[in-house]
Amino acid sequence: MSFSFYIIKASGEKELFDINKFKRSLKRCGAPTKLIMKIARKIEQLPDIRTTRQIYAFALTELEKANPVLAALYNLKQALLRLGPSGFPFEQFVAKIFNAQGYMIKLNQIVPGYCVDHELDLTAIKGKKHIMVECKFHNRQGLKSDVKIPLYIKARFDDIEKAWHLDPKHGHEFHKALITTNTKFTIQARDYAKCVGIQLLDWSYPRKANLPLLIQKYSLYPVTTLTTLSHKEQKLLIKKGIVLCQDISENEWALKEVGLTARQRQHVIRNAKELCKFTYA
Amino acid sequence: MSFSFYIIKASGEKELFDINKFKRSLKRCGAPTKLIMKIARKIEQLPDIRTTRQIYAFALTELEKANPVLAALYNLKQALLRLGPSGFPFEQFVAKIFNAQGYMIKLNQIVPGYCVDHELDLTAIKGKKHIMVECKFHNRQGLKSDVKIPLYIKARFDDIEKAWHLDPKHGHEFHKALITTNTKFTIQARDYAKCVGIQLLDWSYPRKANLPLLIQKYSLYPVTTLTTLSHKEQKLLIKKGIVLCQDISENEWALKEVGLTARQRQHVIRNAKELCKFTYA
Repeated sequence: MSFSFYIIKASGEKELFDINKFKRSLKRCGAPTKLIMKIARKIEQLPDIRTTRQIYAFALTELEKANPVLAALYNLKQALLRLGPSGFPFEQFVAKIFNAQGYMIKLNQIVPGYCVDHELDLTAIKGKKHIMVECKFHNRQGLKSDVKIPLYIKARFDDIEKAWHLDPKHGHEFHKALITTNTKFTIQARDYAKCVGIQLLDWSYPRKANLPLLIQKYSLYPVTTLTTLSHKEQKLLIKKGIVLCQDISENEWALKEVGLTARQRQHVIRNAKELCKFTYA
Repeated sequence: MSFSFYIIKASGEKELFDINKFKRSLKRCGAPTKLIMKIARKIEQLPDIRTTRQIYAFALTELEKANPVLAALYNLKQALLRLGPSGFPFEQFVAKIFNAQGYMIKLNQIVPGYCVDHELDLTAIKGKKHIMVECKFHNRQGLKSDVKIPLYIKARFDDIEKAWHLDPKHGHEFHKALITTNTKFTIQARDYAKCVGIQLLDWSYPRKANLPLLIQKYSLYPVTTLTTLSHKEQKLLIKKGIVLCQDISENEWALKEVGLTARQRQHVIRNAKELCKFTYA
């Protein structure tokens, strides 16, 4: 069957619907081939669906019916966007990524530079390795972090380094700067960062250790991935400091305070546990 | 007469109305003492006026009645904000400031750096003096340009300089970087810029050669200062490339295209000429 129609993207652009691209996105979250074929067939038979948002919502509902864990994985990119509107939950989430890799973390440090003091989102320390981490949170998928961000981080890094070189007593050094964003960096931002030795971490970069890969490797699913919780419940949990699914089971009190019944709590906890067990083949 | 009441600022904050501060703001635009006293007395007798915006609008109307030139000068800060919403008219305006000081200007140059290419808002050249200029336009008065801006300009400057040091054939050099904004820089931005040798130019800095002082010194009043033109007419003029009052008289065609009658055009031209003649005592 040959079938084609235009869809409207989040940016407002029109695009020919690419069924293979759609199937790949389902495959990436681990959906079995049979289920993928079933959902794709349904999409083609629903002439009312005409925006990427509608297609996404439809696929999510179908995955949810088949297996909530698959739905959560399919939901990951949106889940990171939903950590907003402020950047703080994303910072906490990034701290967990470094924790999982054995770093000690300090949030919101004021560090003196040669010219001025600098406020750092995160500092990550493991042995002699010190990383100053800047977190750039965006609320919308289309927003990329541009070259100005690695540029100002470079100047900040230089200023801090200059201060340390002048101070013989300084205890430790920043050996590296790393910038992470929940969306993507522009090509120019990547080129500049690579050239000056700043590490970047975003939704698709670096190719073998980007955000979704690290999330899956260390089971660091944000609570916003859980389709068994409403957006409002997710927000309340984040406010209570519960940012990750892996922290849910030992914090049932938080689910209770959010207003879930005993039965709902058990459902969410089971869901969160299943999700944390999931890793790519 | 002792009189005091609270006013609500643009930021939403409450503040005790300071009649002396208000009088000083009128004095700064050259209003004679008698007129200042008259306006101040009226303000105190109008109990309905309770926001800075209302006080500003009232004073503007009173000045307008007495002398449209005084109104235009009083209007200068708002006039710069009205150059938006895009940053381009502000860039053109800044180009005129450098022109007036004998610089040759290039807008939107792409300059290769060591790591990446950089897009510069403006380059200003006079003899061996080369300045790369970054323009930061804000739509709202309360928005300040923070330290990240001089930080990224510093890194950009370093990157461009590094490329030139490696190229023995390069014709000229950037000896300086300058950043200008229509509002203000934060204290931290000023401290950092001073420390690394970046020049700043904003609404009140440097004290003896800031934007309003340069505007008056070189008669560079934006068309948005003219209270004899509606905001819509001002916008249309800017679209036609007429950014300054001093360019109005030799471009009567533009006023015609904007839809002004012969009589209105003469009124605006006379107004613009009067304003351009005005300089501080």
